[in-house]
Amino acid sequence: MVKWVEGPAVDEDVVVSTRIRVARNLRNYKFPQRMSIQEAEALTNEILNVMKKLPSGVNYKFYKINSLTPVERVSYIEEHLISPGLINRPDYSSFLLKDNESATIMINEEDHLRIQVLYPGLNFEKAWESINEIDNFLESNLDYAYHDEFGYLTACPTNVGTGIRASAMVHIPALSIIGQVNGLINGFQKIGLTVRGLYGEGTKAFGDLYQISNQMTLGEEEEEIIRRLKGVIYQTISKERDVRENLLSKRRYEIEDRVFRSYGLLKYSRKISSKEAMQHLSNVRMGIAMGIINDVKFKDIEKIMIGIQPGSIQKYANRELNDNERDILRAKYIRERL
Amino acid sequence: MVKWVEGPAVDEDVVVSTRIRVARNLRNYKFPQRMSIQEAEALTNEILNVMKKLPSGVNYKFYKINSLTPVERVSYIEEHLISPGLINRPDYSSFLLKDNESATIMINEEDHLRIQVLYPGLNFEKAWESINEIDNFLESNLDYAYHDEFGYLTACPTNVGTGIRASAMVHIPALSIIGQVNGLINGFQKIGLTVRGLYGEGTKAFGDLYQISNQMTLGEEEEEIIRRLKGVIYQTISKERDVRENLLSKRRYEIEDRVFRSYGLLKYSRKISSKEAMQHLSNVRMGIAMGIINDVKFKDIEKIMIGIQPGSIQKYANRELNDNERDILRAKYIRERL
Repeated sequence: MVKWVEGPAVDEDVVVSTRIRVARNLRNYKFPQRMSIQEAEALTNEILNVMKKLPSGVNYKFYKINSLTPVERVSYIEEHLISPGLINRPDYSSFLLKDNESATIMINEEDHLRIQVLYPGLNFEKAWESINEIDNFLESNLDYAYHDEFGYLTACPTNVGTGIRASAMVHIPALSIIGQVNGLINGFQKIGLTVRGLYGEGTKAFGDLYQISNQMTLGEEEEEIIRRLKGVIYQTISKERDVRENLLSKRRYEIEDRVFRSYGLLKYSRKISSKEAMQHLSNVRMGIAMGIINDVKFKDIEKIMIGIQPGSIQKYANRELNDNERDILRAKYIRERL
Repeated sequence: MVKWVEGPAVDEDVVVSTRIRVARNLRNYKFPQRMSIQEAEALTNEILNVMKKLPSGVNYKFYKINSLTPVERVSYIEEHLISPGLINRPDYSSFLLKDNESATIMINEEDHLRIQVLYPGLNFEKAWESINEIDNFLESNLDYAYHDEFGYLTACPTNVGTGIRASAMVHIPALSIIGQVNGLINGFQKIGLTVRGLYGEGTKAFGDLYQISNQMTLGEEEEEIIRRLKGVIYQTISKERDVRENLLSKRRYEIEDRVFRSYGLLKYSRKISSKEAMQHLSNVRMGIAMGIINDVKFKDIEKIMIGIQPGSIQKYANRELNDNERDILRAKYIRERL
């Protein structure tokens, strides 16, 4: 479970993951919102046929949304493998997931194609290389809707141009403790970046996790977008580390107490909401980064943070659970893993 | 440390300790508040001389309040071995402590003599037997102020008569959870009982611990006072146990969560106030009684509850500590013992 988390991760004390997605559409089909089921099937088949031409050793598995249970659909979102928008019209949408989970090709989300690559830690180079490879392969086999002046055409004007959205998920608990997160977010917005919670647009930032991404897709080269974003992420890493160091030297007992109380609660609670658990997991994650907690790894926390989400915990139980049952099973799930 | 806690204890799931004290005065001395230092010394010497006549094998150690450090004075109070009133005028007051800590003879508290016996669990029989033995021995060697009509004369009229105060310290967390403690206390007061916090008159009831004692000392025989109090304690035990059973059957996960969260916090916190620690220790104590926690004993909790008090924790540190230092050492003290 959650294979993409594995593998080498640079700067993972602050950067949980790096993601790039591109939005692409085919010239000969209506946009997904306006197409019929027959057209959706034709488009899907065309893409599946292209995928057969992949070199051997590159394996994707195909999933139709309407073949998945509601719990499975949500758990793929929680694992960051598909976007929330993909499950809105189950009969139209599907996705292809690479066997190591580093890439997803979503069919009939808002656009015909949403290609996503996802890596642990800070790794825009690898992400850029991978998504180019997939995008080039598909472009050479499909008739992309492309306009010489505007670039790639998309269902929503905000994606026209490069169609690219690059993002990093950062964990900034120390900046949160000293109350500097809102200031940081405002600063990001002023330079054309977007800050979102754990599960994208409109979701709350639980566990001191923020997704920072580019706002603009038109008028800049892809490399320039990524280069600017990377610069901001480096600044964020440096700020967060400075504050952590400062907290450790000036408020050591208070910080150790916060970290260990969260650790103790997670190890012993018998019933816990995902919101509360995320906050304690965030404190423990900070404790790992600060060298206060030594027997837990960043990747363990990432996997637990995903595993305790409502859909994933029900997938783990292999049945639907009410709120109370989820809170009880969530506490057990965490206890067994910490 | 805290020797009196050891030894067999009946009904210790609810009753932490049983205490009886009697107030006695000598005919030929002014009451403590009005005597001179010379008189106080003469009285103390007279009592010490009598104590030399004790049968061999019965050993008391003598402590003058003004020979103890402020931290030591407070820690004897916290261990329930002397009353808070004894340290108000250090040059006048002293006490004799039995080697197993089951009995204290306080000299020049509010009265010339305050004899206290203290046993773990519910044990009025043993307490009554012991205090009689000490009281009879002293009475046969000293000239007690006794009035044929009123009984034993005391500095404060509320103690005139038998001069006896019998009490039990009860732990009633379940009644507290369902909000029935205030009702219970009101009921006790209506039948002439007094309910106090952990450290006697005017102290707050931390850790769901309440000291229930008789109000009246005049007009009733000692045995009748004890018999009535014991009846009330039995009712309290039975109520608390009923509610515990009910909570366990109807709200098991919530109760287990409460107990284990407290256990986890106590095992991991790095800084904790005595008030917060007492509440968590109370939850863990309830967990032991309910069979939720199996590797901790009631007596361990009693000893920690005493050891974490401000005076005792400074005695443990062997130096004076500020609030912050106390909170840090308290957390360490608890971690090492749970």
